[in-house]
Amino acid sequence: MVVQFAKRTSEIAPFRVMEVLKTAAELESAGHRVVHFEVGEPDFTTAAPIIKAGQLALANGYTKYTQATGIEPLRLAISAHYKTMGVSVAPEQICVTSGASAGLMMLSALLLNPQDELLITDPGYPCNEVFARTVGATPVRIPTSSNNRFQPVWEDLEAAWSAHTKGALLASPANPTGTMLEAEVLKHLAAQIRQRDGALILDEIYQGLVSEAPYPTGLSVTSDLFVLNSFSKFFGMTGWRLGWIVVPHAAIEGITKLAQNLFISPSTPAQYAALAAFEPEAMAIHESRAEIFRQRQALLMNGLKDLGFSIPVAPDGAFYLYVDVSHTRMKSSEFCHWLLTKHFVAVTPGEDFGDQDAQRYVRFAFTTDEDSIALGLQRLEQAMTELDVEDS
Amino acid sequence: MVVQFAKRTSEIAPFRVMEVLKTAAELESAGHRVVHFEVGEPDFTTAAPIIKAGQLALANGYTKYTQATGIEPLRLAISAHYKTMGVSVAPEQICVTSGASAGLMMLSALLLNPQDELLITDPGYPCNEVFARTVGATPVRIPTSSNNRFQPVWEDLEAAWSAHTKGALLASPANPTGTMLEAEVLKHLAAQIRQRDGALILDEIYQGLVSEAPYPTGLSVTSDLFVLNSFSKFFGMTGWRLGWIVVPHAAIEGITKLAQNLFISPSTPAQYAALAAFEPEAMAIHESRAEIFRQRQALLMNGLKDLGFSIPVAPDGAFYLYVDVSHTRMKSSEFCHWLLTKHFVAVTPGEDFGDQDAQRYVRFAFTTDEDSIALGLQRLEQAMTELDVEDS
Repeated sequence: MVVQFAKRTSEIAPFRVMEVLKTAAELESAGHRVVHFEVGEPDFTTAAPIIKAGQLALANGYTKYTQATGIEPLRLAISAHYKTMGVSVAPEQICVTSGASAGLMMLSALLLNPQDELLITDPGYPCNEVFARTVGATPVRIPTSSNNRFQPVWEDLEAAWSAHTKGALLASPANPTGTMLEAEVLKHLAAQIRQRDGALILDEIYQGLVSEAPYPTGLSVTSDLFVLNSFSKFFGMTGWRLGWIVVPHAAIEGITKLAQNLFISPSTPAQYAALAAFEPEAMAIHESRAEIFRQRQALLMNGLKDLGFSIPVAPDGAFYLYVDVSHTRMKSSEFCHWLLTKHFVAVTPGEDFGDQDAQRYVRFAFTTDEDSIALGLQRLEQAMTELDVEDS
Repeated sequence: MVVQFAKRTSEIAPFRVMEVLKTAAELESAGHRVVHFEVGEPDFTTAAPIIKAGQLALANGYTKYTQATGIEPLRLAISAHYKTMGVSVAPEQICVTSGASAGLMMLSALLLNPQDELLITDPGYPCNEVFARTVGATPVRIPTSSNNRFQPVWEDLEAAWSAHTKGALLASPANPTGTMLEAEVLKHLAAQIRQRDGALILDEIYQGLVSEAPYPTGLSVTSDLFVLNSFSKFFGMTGWRLGWIVVPHAAIEGITKLAQNLFISPSTPAQYAALAAFEPEAMAIHESRAEIFRQRQALLMNGLKDLGFSIPVAPDGAFYLYVDVSHTRMKSSEFCHWLLTKHFVAVTPGEDFGDQDAQRYVRFAFTTDEDSIALGLQRLEQAMTELDVEDS
């Protein structure tokens, strides 16, 4: 077969973290204990009440397709969840999706014609640009600076806004930096984008995993948003593949047609299981895990700073630290390789998240327990000592 | 918000069957018993051994992401499944997907640039063209004729093949007709498409739900194929959203990148549950259900013929009959509306599957039990009597 693959396939860079994961697995096969700071999902399995609800759903035979936009009780539960944040979202505005990935696909298909441009942040979630390319559109990376906590201000977007620009995809809290957009900035961005008949997509998949959030959801700041959310992070349901989007009323018809045609329906057992995710018993577990992430963040951040690493922005949420390793005089990919193969500590190079200063930064994910974090810090201390020796 | 939605959203026709489902639900709310011949999914819930395996997977905490292309044991099981059909498919060629829908999205993204054309059959699965439009490509409907069992021959594709044509998406057995491509025709099509450096995607999601298949899989006829398959139909796992694709070796890298970026991974509990789908106990259940579909097909087909309906092609498989209603002198959408509202029998109008003679045909799905089929036939008999009275 000599069929040419579509241009977009050659534009997708492989994830560097895959190389890290592969090397880590090889080292573990050889008997080494590796400390994992590279993994972008919570180390907790799904909370017991959700597991139980999933098992019950299966026992009840909930194994057929549902309505494309999700079962009514779940959309009501999500709507009620927004109510606890002081925001009114009609159940019809909510489309339950097969993970935030499916939500991003639907929003891309809804909003972007081929040739349209979508502004995304650099650094940012690496898959964002692939969704834009999949619908034939062009992602445009907006460099952000540590001075603005790696979030764009309007001037950054304005400088990149062209006749082809259809909108922007931002995240709050963001990956890999964990920072949130300030409320005033978000409001201003939304107003400016609206003025240009553009669309603002806000990724809130780390909602709830925050320390002191300036606002509970972007929807409490402006209604001019398409919101992306997920049961993966705060609710601990990564492998179930379930998320949701919130769309303005005008977009309900289009999103419904796309959901019907492109996905048929989200996973039925997952939807019934997710109903339990909002019950008090499960919410208490989610909250206690969020607290554990906050404690780990403090432990890791202080430990890294004590070792001389610079962390230009303290995260507001998520479970990542974006750490400057330039004082090691290594590029981040070299640093990652060295740290893993010599000291058995795995982190993700900045190159996975963009171009902007990417060789300066690595991402530490604190998705591993405090003992492992302590061990990782010990090994880093040892590593940095060696580095001093080598350097002298 | 005044954002313009992408052009593709206005090109997606709403499913007529949604109107049928809505009206049927209203009639049921009003106390009527409706016979459902419109539903495109098996009426059986998932087989007990799969349910049990799903519950066990949850108990074991299999709730995190897996490898993007699916867990190794499941790809091995699918590979072994092909072995039973006499075909050798390497596990690396198999990508487990979030339903056949996700498979079709990945293949569309892999193969189609914006401006490319994809040939699809008319009649055919209505969502096919939406996937092409989502990646910015143009679907081109190929009219098929009952003389060729609603399957294309090479001359049909050749007539539509342009400089922009990238390939064809065919189905065997097909929806809504249940017919399979003949082996010789498939072989010739694959060779011709290959000669043009094109891609042939073969939808085999009804594999196993067949009477006398001319071949077990298109892969036993030619290896020049991208194959789409699903755990939804024969394996009875619709709501779990799980399927797979088989791709040539040259496409593995591209598909893996797309799977990682666009889906992260298929549902983890569903993957572990699906392992049980290939075990002898579950296979016996699937086979017995396939036999039930064959019996229902005979019952409904004979019944409809006795009532004077013409069924131009007997299906080879799936669970549909494509029935000519032109002798009623109603367009199929009128016929459907009349049959449902006056006689409480729900069927799907041909317009949902294409343009070609669509007003002549309706689709009967025998996804309801024999008692309901018998009741449906009784009501149809009564209905046709009234029609004679009205006509006279």
